Amino acid sequence: MLATRTLKELAEYLGGEVKGDENIAVNGLAPLESAGPDKITFLANPKYAAKVAETGAACVLMSPGAERHGRNAIEVANPYLAFAKLLTLFYTRPHPPLGVLPEANIGTMVALGEDISVYPGACIGNNVSIGDRTVVHSGAVIYEGAAIGDDCVIHANAVVRERCRLGNRCIIQPGAVIGSDGFGYAPDGRAYYRIPQIGIVVLEDDVEIGANCCIDRAALEVTLIRRGTKLDNLVQIAHNCQIGEDCMIVSQVGISGSTKIGDHVTLAGQVGVAGHLSIGDNVLVGAQSGVPGSLPANAAYSGSPTMPHKEWLRAMAVVPRLPELKKSISSLEKRIAELEAKLIET
Amino acid sequence: MLATRTLKELAEYLGGEVKGDENIAVNGLAPLESAGPDKITFLANPKYAAKVAETGAACVLMSPGAERHGRNAIEVANPYLAFAKLLTLFYTRPHPPLGVLPEANIGTMVALGEDISVYPGACIGNNVSIGDRTVVHSGAVIYEGAAIGDDCVIHANAVVRERCRLGNRCIIQPGAVIGSDGFGYAPDGRAYYRIPQIGIVVLEDDVEIGANCCIDRAALEVTLIRRGTKLDNLVQIAHNCQIGEDCMIVSQVGISGSTKIGDHVTLAGQVGVAGHLSIGDNVLVGAQSGVPGSLPANAAYSGSPTMPHKEWLRAMAVVPRLPELKKSISSLEKRIAELEAKLIET
Amino acid sequence: MLATRTLKELAEYLGGEVKGDENIAVNGLAPLESAGPDKITFLANPKYAAKVAETGAACVLMSPGAERHGRNAIEVANPYLAFAKLLTLFYTRPHPPLGVLPEANIGTMVALGEDISVYPGACIGNNVSIGDRTVVHSGAVIYEGAAIGDDCVIHANAVVRERCRLGNRCIIQPGAVIGSDGFGYAPDGRAYYRIPQIGIVVLEDDVEIGANCCIDRAALEVTLIRRGTKLDNLVQIAHNCQIGEDCMIVSQVGISGSTKIGDHVTLAGQVGVAGHLSIGDNVLVGAQSGVPGSLPANAAYSGSPTMPHKEWLRAMAVVPRLPELKKSISSLEKRIAELEAKLIET
Repeated sequence: MLATRTLKELAEYLGGEVKGDENIAVNGLAPLESAGPDKITFLANPKYAAKVAETGAACVLMSPGAERHGRNAIEVANPYLAFAKLLTLFYTRPHPPLGVLPEANIGTMVALGEDISVYPGACIGNNVSIGDRTVVHSGAVIYEGAAIGDDCVIHANAVVRERCRLGNRCIIQPGAVIGSDGFGYAPDGRAYYRIPQIGIVVLEDDVEIGANCCIDRAALEVTLIRRGTKLDNLVQIAHNCQIGEDCMIVSQVGISGSTKIGDHVTLAGQVGVAGHLSIGDNVLVGAQSGVPGSLPANAAYSGSPTMPHKEWLRAMAVVPRLPELKKSISSLEKRIAELEAKLIET
Repeated sequence: MLATRTLKELAEYLGGEVKGDENIAVNGLAPLESAGPDKITFLANPKYAAKVAETGAACVLMSPGAERHGRNAIEVANPYLAFAKLLTLFYTRPHPPLGVLPEANIGTMVALGEDISVYPGACIGNNVSIGDRTVVHSGAVIYEGAAIGDDCVIHANAVVRERCRLGNRCIIQPGAVIGSDGFGYAPDGRAYYRIPQIGIVVLEDDVEIGANCCIDRAALEVTLIRRGTKLDNLVQIAHNCQIGEDCMIVSQVGISGSTKIGDHVTLAGQVGVAGHLSIGDNVLVGAQSGVPGSLPANAAYSGSPTMPHKEWLRAMAVVPRLPELKKSISSLEKRIAELEAKLIET
Repeated sequence: MLATRTLKELAEYLGGEVKGDENIAVNGLAPLESAGPDKITFLANPKYAAKVAETGAACVLMSPGAERHGRNAIEVANPYLAFAKLLTLFYTRPHPPLGVLPEANIGTMVALGEDISVYPGACIGNNVSIGDRTVVHSGAVIYEGAAIGDDCVIHANAVVRERCRLGNRCIIQPGAVIGSDGFGYAPDGRAYYRIPQIGIVVLEDDVEIGANCCIDRAALEVTLIRRGTKLDNLVQIAHNCQIGEDCMIVSQVGISGSTKIGDHVTLAGQVGVAGHLSIGDNVLVGAQSGVPGSLPANAAYSGSPTMPHKEWLRAMAVVPRLPELKKSISSLEKRIAELEAKLIET
């Protein structure tokens, strides 16, 4: 049974205002098209405004002043955010603390916080510290000397290698690797001599790492991901990188060694970034782009190699017409040669 | 010792016809070049037809009417498929049921089928169901409430998260993650608010998932991969995607959220597909392409951004000649200016 | 406490020559900018030569004849290599042999070398052999019949599947998969029939595999990676590939089936290589390139599809100017039409 809440309660929770009957109660969320009379729905994209008239929902989350077609509504500044907050309210529960289950493997000198859960098959090395309410799922491996903050979730088969440090409320999806050795070798004739990677990885608070991501430890110092940054799945962060706050790094992006990324940067899917670069704050890089040099802040870029996004759009529009342009040039050359011949005659 | 089979037996098994001595026996398969007299080989590509005359094999699988150079042959409609079927016949054995080995971790209320094998270190959560003859390898983790069908193989360190459902005969290669959280956040000022991902992943029958793939659970409902579709390694499927039947998704492909892929689609290696698109049946997308918009059925596309494949081939042929074309244009401009000057004179 | 060494000792170790006071002792390494008087630093890139005058380090590793600004120096032929060797000397210790820890899972008929370490939660199947001094971390899974050489490190949650073979001094980062099934299917009408992948993977000595890489087993014979080759994270090597000696395969590269790569090849990040190709020795392929055909040795290539690297640089310089070139062509067409009209008049 889902708990029910009145629109009045929800409006107070969200800091919004009820339009209509504030005593109606709902027990969950559903999309505009499929919501029934016990559900609340939301209108975030004005494109779908007409659907409000037809929804079966008890209430619609909407921006102040949007047309509510006689429906009950809660007006909020950011309906999409309000939707996310109600999803959390209705559907998520704190993980019940299970303690250390008997089949988990715990090393020596381990500092365990309160109300933690460590599942069977999880392996926690010597001298590790785990914060309060943190959950370590089955098969996750925390190497010696690592430190994990409060309220973290380390999913199944994720790995945190020696001495790496995670802040509070970090979420590590299954299979992600934090602190693998950086890819550093010194040429020794034709062979390569391994450079010891003696640094660590630090993830600040609220960093989330997608499934099967790889974050390499620094050669000497720290590979750093700052507060609030989110990585999608299968992302590669090479050694010595510094990623700023509140960045969105979409799936399959690769960032080469020692590159610094500013705050609030978005790298779309499959982007590649070369090493030793500096990417400014608020930069947006389009999907599959290849970034060969540093990028100034507050702008959008695309292409491989990258150029300003609008320039790229215009250039790409020409690409399918290249054969035609080549033909035009040949034709022009012929016509000019004819003109030149005529003018010589005259 | 490999079992031996006569050509007569094999022809019956394959629904083919023996040309030559049907009583000869073979004990396995080998390539045309290296097969000995106890082996059967195959001719699938007419390019290699001349090698039939020189093979040391006892028999050649070939299309009806192909020249057999006096060799024994089994004529079958699809020699490559027949080769695959004989490989299966000669070299694969059903996994002997081992039961639940003592070092496996099994939760409460788990429904285990008959003749299963659960290896040491596998972790099966509460309320999971596992079908008959399914094999769960070491280190695989099945979260609470997941359901796995009959005859599945879950390889080492693969993860199936809570409530996800797999059909029958699914094969999950090592390290693959089924049901990681979708990458969904609502902007809250400059920071991002996590949107709970309360949906699941459903894999229908005969779906195979490559090593270290990531299939995200839906935000609200289902990320769906339909019957018979195969994923190569390191593929990313974002939340809410629907992939049709009998698709081939090659390594390192990434498909963004809520995109629908038709039946019998092939996405070659490293393709990226944007979100909320629709890709028609039988579409083929060339390697490294970037798909920014929906693609009509029954056609081949390439490029980033994509265009019809043949158009792309022609455009790419021009790219290396761009500097030369630019020069031609400059030269034309100069010649025209000269002509114009002359005409004014005259 | 770090051990200290005199410059004399270090010069002997490196085969270099001290310039200045050979009796000074240091206890570690640091960058030019931040090194204190108990540290040694290095000058590998002449671009930073001026920093030697200002470094606080006790000594600088440098090329013979470089300006030492009155500092103590050790002259060596390859300062970067010397730096790597001293990092190893000062900061790495052989792994203390722990034996098989009680919570590790060891099958039957397993041949274990001397001075090994097998961590809790590691799973070693039947008939596996593990060489001397090899370390198998928690959650690593070695399937039946695999063979691992001496002095290897198999990190947490890595997987080595049945019958695969690793040489000596191989390092497998966390989550890497050696021997997953190759992606091989025979079309059977619209559906796909699985081709059993009965081959193996062989990694020769000194091969290193990055986190979450996937190396597929061969269909029939061997997927081979030769001595000294290093793979960065998230690399895909398909079935039947052969990779030569001392190659550098950077993160997120994908190599399709049956391709042969020569010795000392570098594939930069996110490169894709089609199947059944041959890449010559000493080839360098630029980041994000797509290789559709075989590449001759001793050259650099870039682009998707690839072309000689310098040709690609020139072509890419034109891409942002395509809209302008298109306009120029239109303008030329108009001007020529006018000229043609005039000439007809005259």
